[in-house]
Amino acid sequence: MKEIIALEYKQGELHMIDQRKLPQVFEMFVCKTWKEVDFAIQDMVVRGAPAIGAAAAYGAALAAREYEQESKDVFLSKMEESLAALNESRPTAVNLMWAVKRMRNLLDRHQQENVEQLVERIEAEAHAVVAADQAINIAMGNHGNTIIPEKATILTHCNTGALATVGIGTALGVVRQAFRSGKNIFVYADETRPRLQGGRLTAWELMQEGIPANLIADSVAATLIRDGKIDVILVGADRIATNGDTANKIGTFMLSVLAKTYNVPFYVVAPTTTIDFDMVSGSEIVIEERSSEEVTHIDGHRTAPEGIGVYNPAFDVTPHENITGIITEKGIVRAPFNEQIPKLK
Amino acid sequence: MKEIIALEYKQGELHMIDQRKLPQVFEMFVCKTWKEVDFAIQDMVVRGAPAIGAAAAYGAALAAREYEQESKDVFLSKMEESLAALNESRPTAVNLMWAVKRMRNLLDRHQQENVEQLVERIEAEAHAVVAADQAINIAMGNHGNTIIPEKATILTHCNTGALATVGIGTALGVVRQAFRSGKNIFVYADETRPRLQGGRLTAWELMQEGIPANLIADSVAATLIRDGKIDVILVGADRIATNGDTANKIGTFMLSVLAKTYNVPFYVVAPTTTIDFDMVSGSEIVIEERSSEEVTHIDGHRTAPEGIGVYNPAFDVTPHENITGIITEKGIVRAPFNEQIPKLK
Repeated sequence: MKEIIALEYKQGELHMIDQRKLPQVFEMFVCKTWKEVDFAIQDMVVRGAPAIGAAAAYGAALAAREYEQESKDVFLSKMEESLAALNESRPTAVNLMWAVKRMRNLLDRHQQENVEQLVERIEAEAHAVVAADQAINIAMGNHGNTIIPEKATILTHCNTGALATVGIGTALGVVRQAFRSGKNIFVYADETRPRLQGGRLTAWELMQEGIPANLIADSVAATLIRDGKIDVILVGADRIATNGDTANKIGTFMLSVLAKTYNVPFYVVAPTTTIDFDMVSGSEIVIEERSSEEVTHIDGHRTAPEGIGVYNPAFDVTPHENITGIITEKGIVRAPFNEQIPKLK
Repeated sequence: MKEIIALEYKQGELHMIDQRKLPQVFEMFVCKTWKEVDFAIQDMVVRGAPAIGAAAAYGAALAAREYEQESKDVFLSKMEESLAALNESRPTAVNLMWAVKRMRNLLDRHQQENVEQLVERIEAEAHAVVAADQAINIAMGNHGNTIIPEKATILTHCNTGALATVGIGTALGVVRQAFRSGKNIFVYADETRPRLQGGRLTAWELMQEGIPANLIADSVAATLIRDGKIDVILVGADRIATNGDTANKIGTFMLSVLAKTYNVPFYVVAPTTTIDFDMVSGSEIVIEERSSEEVTHIDGHRTAPEGIGVYNPAFDVTPHENITGIITEKGIVRAPFNEQIPKLK
């Protein structure tokens, strides 16, 4: 078993596993400037809400290094420019906005300090974001493991593992902790069209860790759920409203309807940073629409006819009534979510 | 608009559109022997239950031509060998077994005739299978069109069009008749993993016909259904039990659960030849499991890591209680299906 590190900051460079190339090629994508980080987030070199948050934090650190020779006024204006851009590199991930906000607050709190001091603070803050994420992952994994039966068959969607975070993962972190604690689990991994994060990344992580698993087309899950072959469903989250409505990778909502219809426990695994405490319901969540080529092409190879219309939303919203519980680093939250979630603030 | 002919028998050869190569390449696959037809069915050069039935019928015609110089005993034994093989070329399609049975019955009814006469009868029978399929498609299309609203948005799954039949199609035949009758319809086509028959074939057929459409990843349908964006769902069938339980392409069952949950009309469109009158419920249906490479590779290009386990069922079973109606060439059948379906025999 080898530990997977999605991104690492060393000697003023941000090294990321290039997730566009997995599982065929294991290659690092190295960012020396914040604009390269901005590109890496947009192009999904790095993906997964917590990993995007960490990448944006290090993007701010790279920006600080880039502008450290400037006057304080120029430095602050350049920092704001980079933070504003990073903030918009992906529209749905709340961790991204949260990381950017942490940096803005930091600059605000220490506005009396000089540029050199601010640069150091920003770098330290980015490291703190990562250390917190790692600890949070372990805590979620341990809380989550309490609801995993000894011989559980677990269904999961998209990639929510070490590649999506800077620790053991969210939903896949629970799978890891269950496996590492000696439980005889079996995993069904949805391939997760259109980008195949399950087929490419989760399958790869499960194999690295030696966890027994089958890869399935997304629509196969329905029959497995009906036929009692799934004990628990674990998914991640990109954004959670205070009533529990959860935006996550397209396909999550479908699973939740099946889970509810056939009484299979359906858990969202996400750090409290994924909760948007200003949002009262999922109807406010803006769903990112991505390029039609994600559906018509695979790795640059066209499968669908030229000119066909495409509708390609990246996320869907699972209503709170379909969710059994939300596993956070602070414990497992259950209905009524609109009462329990605000207590996590 | 150009008429699509999935397969055609001319001068002792069976010409099929090679559906493995669409939509990139439009190419004919020509069979001169029944073994080539057997291969073509197995390898999905031709697919779709009615088209498979027609291909098997012409396979028998090719076999008859191949063995027409033999003694009657050898001829009959070779015919039986070819019919037995064709019968097993795909496990789920009932039309295949039905076409083979028609040929066996024919040979049985005319056992007093000589080889030359039998060869002619078999060829005529194959043509009759095709002519019947074309007429049946038109009848289903017209019955189905009665339930399509003037500005309907229709969701469909897999390919059930001219490529899947030898006529205008089953579910897509209803779409065609609605469009040709002047209704302002819009179609959402599920791409239909793992083989992408929707993305490759349905998208291609819709474009050939000029029907406005969007291609979607299979899991996107759930949100469209919930949000009231779909007026009616039309799917085909590979096998229907007498209680209405329907085996169809993997992903159909998932749609049916969403349709039932959110009160969207869900229709199966299939000729009565798809009904297995000897089968009382869907629990008896054997589900074909296909190669793991269908999930791990796309057009020979690997996307999932080597060695990952795969579960790849080709079909699922939709329970009758999720089905609004079954549109056949004899009219639309509704619940109670176990009373109404036997009347179609």
